[in-house]
Formats: sequence, structure tokens, C-alpha cells
Amino acid sequence: MRVFNFSAGPAALPEPVLRQAAAEMLDWHGSGMGVMEMSHRGPEFIAIHAEAVALLRELLDVPAHYRILFMQGGAIAANAIIPLNLMGPAGRADYVVTGSWSQKSYKEAQKYGSAALAASAERDGAFRHIPPVQEWRLDPGAAYVHVCTNETIDGVEFAEPPLLPGAVPLVADVSSHILSRPLDVTRFGVLYGGAQKNIGPAGLTIVIIREDLLGRAHPLTPSAFDFKTVADNDSMYNTPPTYAIYIAGLVFRWLKEQGGLAGIERANVAKANLLYDAIDGSGFYVNRVDRACRSRMNVPFVLPDKRLDAAFLKGAEERGMVQLKGHRSVGGMRASIYNAMPLAGVEALVAYMREFAKAHG
Amino acid sequence: MRVFNFSAGPAALPEPVLRQAAAEMLDWHGSGMGVMEMSHRGPEFIAIHAEAVALLRELLDVPAHYRILFMQGGAIAANAIIPLNLMGPAGRADYVVTGSWSQKSYKEAQKYGSAALAASAERDGAFRHIPPVQEWRLDPGAAYVHVCTNETIDGVEFAEPPLLPGAVPLVADVSSHILSRPLDVTRFGVLYGGAQKNIGPAGLTIVIIREDLLGRAHPLTPSAFDFKTVADNDSMYNTPPTYAIYIAGLVFRWLKEQGGLAGIERANVAKANLLYDAIDGSGFYVNRVDRACRSRMNVPFVLPDKRLDAAFLKGAEERGMVQLKGHRSVGGMRASIYNAMPLAGVEALVAYMREFAKAHG
Repeated sequence: MRVFNFSAGPAALPEPVLRQAAAEMLDWHGSGMGVMEMSHRGPEFIAIHAEAVALLRELLDVPAHYRILFMQGGAIAANAIIPLNLMGPAGRADYVVTGSWSQKSYKEAQKYGSAALAASAERDGAFRHIPPVQEWRLDPGAAYVHVCTNETIDGVEFAEPPLLPGAVPLVADVSSHILSRPLDVTRFGVLYGGAQKNIGPAGLTIVIIREDLLGRAHPLTPSAFDFKTVADNDSMYNTPPTYAIYIAGLVFRWLKEQGGLAGIERANVAKANLLYDAIDGSGFYVNRVDRACRSRMNVPFVLPDKRLDAAFLKGAEERGMVQLKGHRSVGGMRASIYNAMPLAGVEALVAYMREFAKAHG
Repeated sequence: MRVFNFSAGPAALPEPVLRQAAAEMLDWHGSGMGVMEMSHRGPEFIAIHAEAVALLRELLDVPAHYRILFMQGGAIAANAIIPLNLMGPAGRADYVVTGSWSQKSYKEAQKYGSAALAASAERDGAFRHIPPVQEWRLDPGAAYVHVCTNETIDGVEFAEPPLLPGAVPLVADVSSHILSRPLDVTRFGVLYGGAQKNIGPAGLTIVIIREDLLGRAHPLTPSAFDFKTVADNDSMYNTPPTYAIYIAGLVFRWLKEQGGLAGIERANVAKANLLYDAIDGSGFYVNRVDRACRSRMNVPFVLPDKRLDAAFLKGAEERGMVQLKGHRSVGGMRASIYNAMPLAGVEALVAYMREFAKAHG
């Protein structure tokens, strides 16, 4: 019996993807090999890789002057790889902190140059809103402006990518909402994210970069993490995480079958509305994030009394709903409802939340 | 129908491992989740991770004062990560070049300090022997001495880890023969390797490091690749490549069932002897590597006339034997016969080689 898995990542994957991966584990398309066993230079894997890149380009409508790179290390490694590749001789970048993840990015960047805090949404130790772009203290000489467009821990999401004044490129960690909604890639210089939320297995990092931003790496950048080297070698400078790329490709195909990003957005809006309405209408559960920037992917909420948390989680597990505990840094509950979470999972959660509130309210 | 896959990596995996992975894809041990979907902080994955570390420690008899780290990026990323972590204030390291991989390591290290060529086995553009340690020009003030103990492209292997004079730690890329034979870990300061030969899927890097070598990283080392940060966080500073770690754990268990490293070594010796004897006795195929350092894992050989290569490869494919083409930098053929290659695969190859030589000799 499959559970409803509300993990923030690694996270639930679409069942049809897992079924296909299992069926092809020992023999991919009559090749006599599983994908995990294939040389990354062989014709079979080269086809798998090319299809994954093409599907991602199609889904996100990535223009031709952007390169799609498959790398490793996730967003935490990228926190260093981004400034190493982009800070350039200016050595200055602006960071906008709207939650725990952008705060980590800002901190790591300070090792590589002058990372300035252009805006912070922190109030009394919590992140619940996004300051308007007009309030950001932007440095026109910065190499880039960094944001995290969906904060997994705090449940804060940019409804639209910020529209920056001037020509400084926008760099965004999109790990936890990429492919959950249409996105105007041309607003960004670089988009990056770990795959383990909406794309596939942990260990794969997606980077989408405007070509003019290649070739600015600090001399100490490891070659395997130099965007230009990776781009020049079609993500095969070092052996790529082949199996993760294969799973990502299957997820991209599944997404097309859901009607692409417009289709999955409709499903995601329905799930998020159902859950937020249940919270707001409960008189019991509370989510304090500004409505304009509530995340559709990660929904944190608290119970009226912390002492009820253990009972809530236990009851959820008994009903086949797991990983609802909030991040240790903020406490409470968190339901991550990525693309692969079916509406039935949110319906089951909402029904249980009503039942629990009635019993303990 | 499964083929015999002689790829140099990613490479064939044991069939029982693939069967178990397929069976558990949607539901691991009744958890209702596949391993790919599990939070790396959840009890299920923490158990999988801990078991993989423990099995690797047992198989290689890793002493308690060595840490086992699971990282990302493979050996090519490690070519930068090693000097970033180990060169220290001395900024000097010795490199011994015995093939294409150690040459790459030597080249990348030059970005990070004074990497000296302590010895090179290159003669007329080829690597076919290992200079004795007595001939290495070792710097007693070097931070480490780097070797690659099995050269995948050239087919050159250290039969024993070199015994260095003095206290400079030995650092070794063991990617392509780790776990193929018992190894005295205490001879090394650091062992590292990509998993995609004898361990599991591409995208996982194994690092085994003596504890006193932690904490020497260059200030610009990305936190996710700082050995001390990784060790202090039990390889969970960033989200680890969870599925690759799970597969590695299954491979480790399979290895125990083969009689551990002593058992698999017997099988590997039998396979390698069969193939080298067939080459040497053929009067047709040639392998020019010194017998004392011929690799048991990667067996390159040439045909008497390059114009026969295409026919040889075509005939092999027709008989279900794939990936026998030598690396593009050296040409000819290469049979990689890692742990997961059954004796039957080498027998089939040898029978075909005899048949082909008879027809074209």
C-alpha cells in the first residue's frame, strides 16, 4: 500500500514513472542493459539525455540563447558554484532574503566576494512576506541579484518572478517550485535547482543559464562546476548522474501528459486552495504567511498547542499520511504538495485535519 | 535478453541487485514509498544510509579513525576537491602520473597550488608501466602524494598500494578497482572514487579519509565539498544522492554474499587470467602493459590491423557483447571486467576472440 508522502524533498514521484522505471530496470528498450549500467557515451544514454533536455526546454519554453545544464550537488553546492561562476571581477552581488534557503545562499556567497543584503523579509525571526522590488537596495554594479523563488521551509513563494529595474541579471534558486507553473525564463539570467522536489532523484541539479553569462568563472572554480566547461561538454565533462537524468526525463514526459505546466498549475492551484481554505476556515490551524505569497508547494501550519503535534502526526501516520512534521528550525507542521501529490492526498489530509480539530478543538 | 556489458563505467551491475531495486521501486520494506521518494532525514533512509556505511567499512576493513563520506561529482570533481581540501598552507603536492586519469588529476591540481610531477610513466605517449617508488622525486614538505591506483583507459593497476617513505599522506583515486580486491586502507590518507564502476550508479562519490586530514580546506572551498563539513554532518550537509547510496548498499550486500573482497578477488583473478592468457596466446591480439601492473579490471588490447576493429565490434554486438571499443584517446579494444561481470561473459568474449582471430589471422 502506497502512503501519501508529504515530504519536502526528496519527495513523492508520479506512480507511472516509478512503474516504468521498475519495468525497465534490467533491460531498457531491448538494449539488454538497465539505464544505470549504460555508458554515458553510448548511443542509448545519449538519446535519453537529449530527450530529457528537449522536454525540459519544451515544458519551460526555454529560449535558444539559454543553455540547460545537468549538474550535481543540489542547491547547497550551488550556493558556492553560483558566486564562483558569476561574481566575476566586480566581486559584488545582491541577495534578497525571503526565507531560510535564500539566507543560506547569502551566507555562503560571502566567502566569494561582497555579497550585499539588498532586502530581508525577516521579522521577529520569521519569514512571512516578500518586500516589493521598489524597496530592494539594488547595486547597479552588482554581478547579479539572487532570490529564492519558493522557500520550502517558510512556505513563501514569488507569485511572479520579480521584474528588476536595469540590466543586472536575476539569479534564482527555483528548486522547490520549478515545473509547478509556467515561468517566464527570460526574466532570469540563471535558474537553478535540486531535482528532488518536482523533477526526480536527489543528486541532480538543473541549471538554465543565459549564454552571455558563461565564461566568467573565478580561476579556482573546479572544472566540473564551471558552467562554461559544463556547457561546452553538453553536461558530460564529468560522468553525469545518468539514472537521475533518466528519471527526470520520465517525469518530464508525465508532465506533458498532465497538460504541461498550464495543466499541472491548474491541479496545483486546486490542491493549494483546498488546503489553505481548510486551514483558514478551521479556527484551529494557522498559517501566518501573507496570502499574496503563500507557497502552492509547501504549506506550513501550526496547531493551537504544540503539545498536540505528536498526536496529530501519529494519527496522520495511522491514516497513511507521512512526513508532515515541519522543518526543525520552525516547528509545527508542513505539507509539501508537489506535482506528484494527487488531489486525493490533499483531500485525505483535509478530512483528517477536520476530524482532528473537532476532537481537540 | 541481457547482454554482456563491458563498459568502463557506468558499468554492469549485479542482476540480483537490479531485481531487488525493481521490486522495491514503489514500496521499500512496507514503508509505502520508494527509496527515491524518501526524505533523507526520515528513519527509513537514515537506516539505509547507515547500513551502506557499515557494510563498506566491514568490506574494506576501514579502521575507526577513518571517516567514510558519500559525496557527489565523481573523480573529475574530486580532482579539484582534493587539492582544495588538502593542499593547505604549504600549497604543494606531489603527483605520480601512470595514465590518463592521474594526468587529469595532476593538471587540475595546478590551479590550486604547486602540484609537482613526482614521476611520470609516459613513454612515447603511452602508459604501460609503474615506476618504482624509489624513483619518485618526493617532496618531504608536500601536503600529499597523489596516485591513481587503477588507470581505466590504459589498463595499468598498482598490484599493491605504494609504500611511501616518510609521513606525507598518500591520496588515491581508486574509482575503477575499489572493492575488487582486499586493500590495506592504512596505507592511505585519503581514498576516493566515483561509484559507477564497482559500486553503483554514477553521481555518487566515495571518500575514505583519515580523521587528522579533516579541517585543512582552502577558504574558497564550497561548504558542500569541504570534507570536514561533510564529515561533521554524516554526509547530509546537502541532500545526498539517496537512490545511489541505496543501490551501493545493495551492491555491498551482494559482495558479502560473494565472500567479501577475498571471494571477489578470486573471481576477478580467474576472469583476468582467462582474458590475458587468451590475448597473449593468440599471436593476434596484443596488450603491451607490463605484466606486473596489468589491470584486472580494464583490459585494453589491439588487433593486428585497425581496419579489423569495426568488424570485431560488429561481431561482438551480434553475439550480445557490447561496449568493447577502446577509449577514443587510445583506440583499439577494451574489455572492462568489473565485479559484476560474470565469468561466463569473459568466456563468451574469449571464445569469440578465438573465432575472430581464426577467421582473420
